[in-house]
Amino acid sequence: MSKKLTSRAEDYSKWYNELVVKADLAENSAVRGCMVIKPYGYAIWEKMQDELDKMFKETGHQNAYFPLFVPKSLFEAEEKNAEGFAKECAVVTHYRLQNDPDNKGKLRVDPKAKLEEELVVRPTSEAIIWNTYRGWIQSYRDLPLLINQWANVVRWEMRTRLFLRTAEFLWQEGHTAHETKKEALAEAELMNDVYAKFAENFMAIPVIQGIKTESERFAGAEETYCIEALMQDGKALQAGTSHFLGQNFAKAFDVKFANKEGKQDYVWATSWGVSTRLMGALIMTHSDDNGLVLPPSLAPNQVVIVPIYKSEEDLEAITNVANTILSELRGKNITVKYDNRTTHRPGAKFAQHELQGVPLRIAIGARDLANGTVEIARRDTLTKEVVAMEGLSDKIEALLKTIQKDLFNKALDFRNNHITEVDNFDEFIEVLESKTGFVSAHWDGTAETEDKIKELTKATIRCIPLEGIEEMGDCVYTGNPSKRRVLFAKAY
Amino acid sequence: MSKKLTSRAEDYSKWYNELVVKADLAENSAVRGCMVIKPYGYAIWEKMQDELDKMFKETGHQNAYFPLFVPKSLFEAEEKNAEGFAKECAVVTHYRLQNDPDNKGKLRVDPKAKLEEELVVRPTSEAIIWNTYRGWIQSYRDLPLLINQWANVVRWEMRTRLFLRTAEFLWQEGHTAHETKKEALAEAELMNDVYAKFAENFMAIPVIQGIKTESERFAGAEETYCIEALMQDGKALQAGTSHFLGQNFAKAFDVKFANKEGKQDYVWATSWGVSTRLMGALIMTHSDDNGLVLPPSLAPNQVVIVPIYKSEEDLEAITNVANTILSELRGKNITVKYDNRTTHRPGAKFAQHELQGVPLRIAIGARDLANGTVEIARRDTLTKEVVAMEGLSDKIEALLKTIQKDLFNKALDFRNNHITEVDNFDEFIEVLESKTGFVSAHWDGTAETEDKIKELTKATIRCIPLEGIEEMGDCVYTGNPSKRRVLFAKAY
Ligand SMILES: [Zn+2]
Ligand SMILES: [Zn+2]
Repeated sequence: MSKKLTSRAEDYSKWYNELVVKADLAENSAVRGCMVIKPYGYAIWEKMQDELDKMFKETGHQNAYFPLFVPKSLFEAEEKNAEGFAKECAVVTHYRLQNDPDNKGKLRVDPKAKLEEELVVRPTSEAIIWNTYRGWIQSYRDLPLLINQWANVVRWEMRTRLFLRTAEFLWQEGHTAHETKKEALAEAELMNDVYAKFAENFMAIPVIQGIKTESERFAGAEETYCIEALMQDGKALQAGTSHFLGQNFAKAFDVKFANKEGKQDYVWATSWGVSTRLMGALIMTHSDDNGLVLPPSLAPNQVVIVPIYKSEEDLEAITNVANTILSELRGKNITVKYDNRTTHRPGAKFAQHELQGVPLRIAIGARDLANGTVEIARRDTLTKEVVAMEGLSDKIEALLKTIQKDLFNKALDFRNNHITEVDNFDEFIEVLESKTGFVSAHWDGTAETEDKIKELTKATIRCIPLEGIEEMGDCVYTGNPSKRRVLFAKAY
Repeated sequence: MSKKLTSRAEDYSKWYNELVVKADLAENSAVRGCMVIKPYGYAIWEKMQDELDKMFKETGHQNAYFPLFVPKSLFEAEEKNAEGFAKECAVVTHYRLQNDPDNKGKLRVDPKAKLEEELVVRPTSEAIIWNTYRGWIQSYRDLPLLINQWANVVRWEMRTRLFLRTAEFLWQEGHTAHETKKEALAEAELMNDVYAKFAENFMAIPVIQGIKTESERFAGAEETYCIEALMQDGKALQAGTSHFLGQNFAKAFDVKFANKEGKQDYVWATSWGVSTRLMGALIMTHSDDNGLVLPPSLAPNQVVIVPIYKSEEDLEAITNVANTILSELRGKNITVKYDNRTTHRPGAKFAQHELQGVPLRIAIGARDLANGTVEIARRDTLTKEVVAMEGLSDKIEALLKTIQKDLFNKALDFRNNHITEVDNFDEFIEVLESKTGFVSAHWDGTAETEDKIKELTKATIRCIPLEGIEEMGDCVYTGNPSKRRVLFAKAY
């Protein structure tokens, strides 16, 4: 547990895998591709959930719950969506086990308990939800319908990595229904914006808002909005998506409504989601060779206090002081833990809290008591300072705000330094290989060119940025005319 | 939607089903036995989750997440548990769909994508969790391990009813590991007590704490504690269970620890859970022929304000007053909604809020403005009173507390009036058939007698109450000696 991590320079991917396990965030399970989210990792995920849930409710959404299973006949109703997910579906075919006559004490699937229709374990819930919405929507008075679901989903990925790509993952999926195309588009944009605000203000992760090209779109969507972040190794990570689904699902599931003029029309749809993948983005944005670095807003413990003592008397005196600090900090809604475990020495405690990313560590020794001081260590900068007990809780409160801001600015600088405008293909390859990050380049708008570039460089178009400006130019690969730059990158 | 419910006297079961759907709590889905929990029902479930989660954390538990799937070989490792759930397991056998060559536009299971080992969709998570705990527990320093999971589980029930018995349901499952038998027993008792406090103080449902007989125990448990509630139709409902699992799972999954003396020993276990079934208990404890009745602690809206107006001017004046009330109530953390929909008349609004169990309704008309009064209607008693605007928010706050307490006391009276001590079998049958409720009777302690009584009367032993007193007597069926009474009832 206290063993050092592989450094990022040595092997970024190995560093990531080790950090996830050693910081007690998650681990692989006995089920291929499925992870166990450990209590410390789950506590961080809960903080994300709480904040997102609040933001969803503030924008008028309600939670609900729809079945885990999708009957095959519903699953295949929206063809593009079905096609997009068919190759990675876990399928329930039987509903009973029985004693295995050939293997005492073992079970086997009961061949007589075969389902008439197979059930797909939801890879996403548009099908089951739109089949339900048909019963909920008759008139414009039933619209908009603004619903979110917190759920587990399963996509049978062949190559999995903790948090980034797992066969089962946790997410939220919003599914909304609207009277008009305009309203649905506005909703898709609004929720992408909610995601961007959440990523930047809460997770301290700068993101670029954009739209996906047709080939990168969600299966069944007419437009996919996204937020794209940049990881420390120069690869992009799609941190959230929000889809304008047009009338595709309404048509597939026959969801019509009587509009204000009394005419029947198909309903317009959106869906949007973020997942436990955000944990991966969090780790690869802020962490370092010593382990996890957490923005204070996501830290289960924002502050930890470690007593440094030789005698029981010292410990008693330190504990008295610590208790005062604890109650002052808790009065300010700062989460703080007093680590007075007798099973670990201070050095081991320091290492553990560093590995787990606790933003601030307060050490109190006998000399501090005499001087009326404590030692504060910042996890993000690894700097220490001795400060007066007097006014400590105000100081801590301010420091936590500073850390939150500094982490964002540091990530923003890095990200901005890794967006490179490129105007010829040699440079394009060169930047992707050596500098890495986003390459901002002209593209002729065709899927053929996009495919070819992906084949040659492994880079994909991450998005057409919403804030991009119109600028005539020549496609970086074909030289054909282009009206604006798009962002390419290798990606998770 | 506004159509009247079947009365409870006419058909209790039909009343229940209609109420669940008409009050917008849940509905059946396209997947056999799986329900859709609608936003209003889910909002109530969220309140239960929040309170339980707080109680779990206050007693030292942390949340985590374990895989949805259990490989068959792990599932069968603890034999009694496997045997108990084998007949109701949904089983994933394939991981891919493909285009059906015989049916254009349709999909079929790809026969080449058969899993080497089948995956059981978790009916409960002991197996996957204890297989994980093996890696987490080496020494007594790792104990106790106090973990809870919020999750969906699947049990392929043949006869399903919304909330009460569904193929998929939502629940929490605690799984703890301890050094000693004594500690594990204390944990199982503690969590049963947490459930009892939650049911009584939060849901206003009186419960009897007890232990299950061997034949009613959780498969794989050595002792099952439970809380039993009584529904309005005189049938009992098991509202939560807490299991002492002994060393059964530790032995099945080889989870040992080095104790303080350095010797290896198997770990002691508990598990405990409550589910969306609690929604059924809630409905059948408090509701009436007009619909849902909610204790204020569980009401998404504790108060609703309905304006009664003829002119736009009246509405404006009423809205001004309403806004003052809204902000005062919100300042007291009371959830309140101003129902100023123009699409519905006051009568329709009243009916809807009654059906959905809003504890207090405030109606404000033009005459009220002149008099400085409002009309308050209590959902639980269906009584109305005209009260002064002056001091209204204090009055409302007090009334909500009164309603919470009155609901509990009413249910407690009903429950207490339906525990009948019986000393011969004719009376036993008579009470079960006519008076209904719990029958407190002597039992000789054998599974044979228990089975025979069940066969003859459909009543089961709900529990051996923890608070029961020792009292020698003769078994109500066999006349054999018995040391204490147990509680029989027909049950959900
Ligand atoms: Zn660089
Ligand atoms: Zn009665």
